Amino acid sequence: MEIQKPYLLFLADAHDRLAAKVATGIRHWHPEFCVGQLRMEGCQVDCDLPDLDIAAARAKGAKTLVIGVANRGGVIAEGWVSVLRQALENGMDLAAGLHNRLSDVPGLKALADSLGRSLFDVRHSSAVLPVASGRKRSGKRLLPVGTDCSCGKMYTALAIEKAMLERGMRATFRATGQTGILVSGAGISIDAVVADFIAGAVEQLAPDNQPEHWDVIEGQGSLFHPSFSGVTMGLIHGAQPDALVLCHEPTRTAMRGVDYPLPDLGDCMALNLKAAQLTNPRARFVGISINSAHLSEQAALDYMADLERRYGLPAIDPFRQGVGRIIDQL
Amino acid sequence: MEIQKPYLLFLADAHDRLAAKVATGIRHWHPEFCVGQLRMEGCQVDCDLPDLDIAAARAKGAKTLVIGVANRGGVIAEGWVSVLRQALENGMDLAAGLHNRLSDVPGLKALADSLGRSLFDVRHSSAVLPVASGRKRSGKRLLPVGTDCSCGKMYTALAIEKAMLERGMRATFRATGQTGILVSGAGISIDAVVADFIAGAVEQLAPDNQPEHWDVIEGQGSLFHPSFSGVTMGLIHGAQPDALVLCHEPTRTAMRGVDYPLPDLGDCMALNLKAAQLTNPRARFVGISINSAHLSEQAALDYMADLERRYGLPAIDPFRQGVGRIIDQL
Repeated sequence: MEIQKPYLLFLADAHDRLAAKVATGIRHWHPEFCVGQLRMEGCQVDCDLPDLDIAAARAKGAKTLVIGVANRGGVIAEGWVSVLRQALENGMDLAAGLHNRLSDVPGLKALADSLGRSLFDVRHSSAVLPVASGRKRSGKRLLPVGTDCSCGKMYTALAIEKAMLERGMRATFRATGQTGILVSGAGISIDAVVADFIAGAVEQLAPDNQPEHWDVIEGQGSLFHPSFSGVTMGLIHGAQPDALVLCHEPTRTAMRGVDYPLPDLGDCMALNLKAAQLTNPRARFVGISINSAHLSEQAALDYMADLERRYGLPAIDPFRQGVGRIIDQL
Repeated sequence: MEIQKPYLLFLADAHDRLAAKVATGIRHWHPEFCVGQLRMEGCQVDCDLPDLDIAAARAKGAKTLVIGVANRGGVIAEGWVSVLRQALENGMDLAAGLHNRLSDVPGLKALADSLGRSLFDVRHSSAVLPVASGRKRSGKRLLPVGTDCSCGKMYTALAIEKAMLERGMRATFRATGQTGILVSGAGISIDAVVADFIAGAVEQLAPDNQPEHWDVIEGQGSLFHPSFSGVTMGLIHGAQPDALVLCHEPTRTAMRGVDYPLPDLGDCMALNLKAAQLTNPRARFVGISINSAHLSEQAALDYMADLERRYGLPAIDPFRQGVGRIIDQL
């Protein structure tokens, strides 16, 4: 799916930045996609964009209203519907990555159809997907993999794409989750496809390309997470990565949502490398990306220096040090 | 899904046993489920069951007409529809595992609804599935894993269930594919669930049980198959197997449908064991099941003797030698 830009970011009545992480993600990575923000009464988040109503945003060229907020349960609140209808009536598409669908809001699909507008429920792909062929594709691919879910794989991938483009390299971020799709405007929500098509979806998402072009594919889950490992395995095989980056959050004591310990980093890299080499025998690790938000600067530096000694790879926090030293490895 | 027994097996105009493999599978493993067969003109397969029309089958208690044949493309032929309607009108449910759905045959769903009958499209589960918790469940589980797709995992699992029951052990075959579901009358087609729920579906399929009870879970795909490895990984983690059996077809020179070599057996066992031990640290291999249909008896025996020496595990062809020596390992 390809969402029309630029966007008006709908923040609704979000109370904190975590609730508005889709909006803040788009604002951070692609400020050029955003003409403004639309906040309802009680909203306590500011993306540092002009406050615009629907008409003003349309006048500034906004093509899509993106729901940039997730409330409890991922539902579309009743209070939002009049804003959504108004956006459609003013010629804008709608995009959301929530659990319940725009198309399930009574009357919204009919209104969109009657106006020739589109609703993008980015969790739910309507693409016809192939079974993966395993055929080696041209171009190069980088994939972050993780010790756990939600440990910085999307951030790392977006940081690498941005740094590659700044160096004049050819690179494309390939989104595999709803936030990544909304941030970049395209992609396939890989955990929502039918199981037989996981790897095939990734083959379609990151097709043949020029020899020097890098697809930077958003990672998902972990081979060591008992809930989501199937998604991760199919993603690795479909991605055929030339380069892997291990992502890790060092202060976590259990994996997200389950009573399992985090894997050893060396063990985790060994299993991911084993998997990756099935579809790309030249796959190798090129760095370690640490989400050190919960460590002091010095503790983070000490921790990463220790990882570098132990594994012989650059270890960085993309937020603190940038990803340049990882790109140097390619 | 739970399909009502006994069955009338619909063989349509099947030309060979491969086309009728669902019917022959049910007949082989569960003759007690079958009241008879229904063959159309030109059918060249015989399941060695009484030939019955719909009314006669109903009189003998048949509760479900099972489409036991797969034609080219897995579609429901137009010529079958009058038989299907007649079965519904005579009080029978319908079950099929084809690509296109019974519920997509014009008028069939409406007829079934008006008569209070059910259509079972076993490839497509309507179950609400959980995300896997990874919580260790009570009871024991055995899972066949493979070097490839279609190398004998279902046959091995059904043979093990049967032999366990004959020994007076408590055991239940848990189907994860359409043929297995139709053969056993229940299960979840694991390759058709949404990717996030692969492991969760298996947790639901093989729930807590008595300490001495064995769930014998049908395996799917291979960790070394670039198209379907995600399904396999999620299945292994959801199954939490105590016992693994490696299934292999020794004459194959490439993996099914892709240009990839078969993995080394030792390498394959190592990776499957590594995966299985995440959710069950006590997982171990208890045997090797060889599909030796394309070898002479002597060549098969020599091959399996060599495997036994090399890996220290019983190596048998379940069709030729039975699975007793594998069960002895438990």
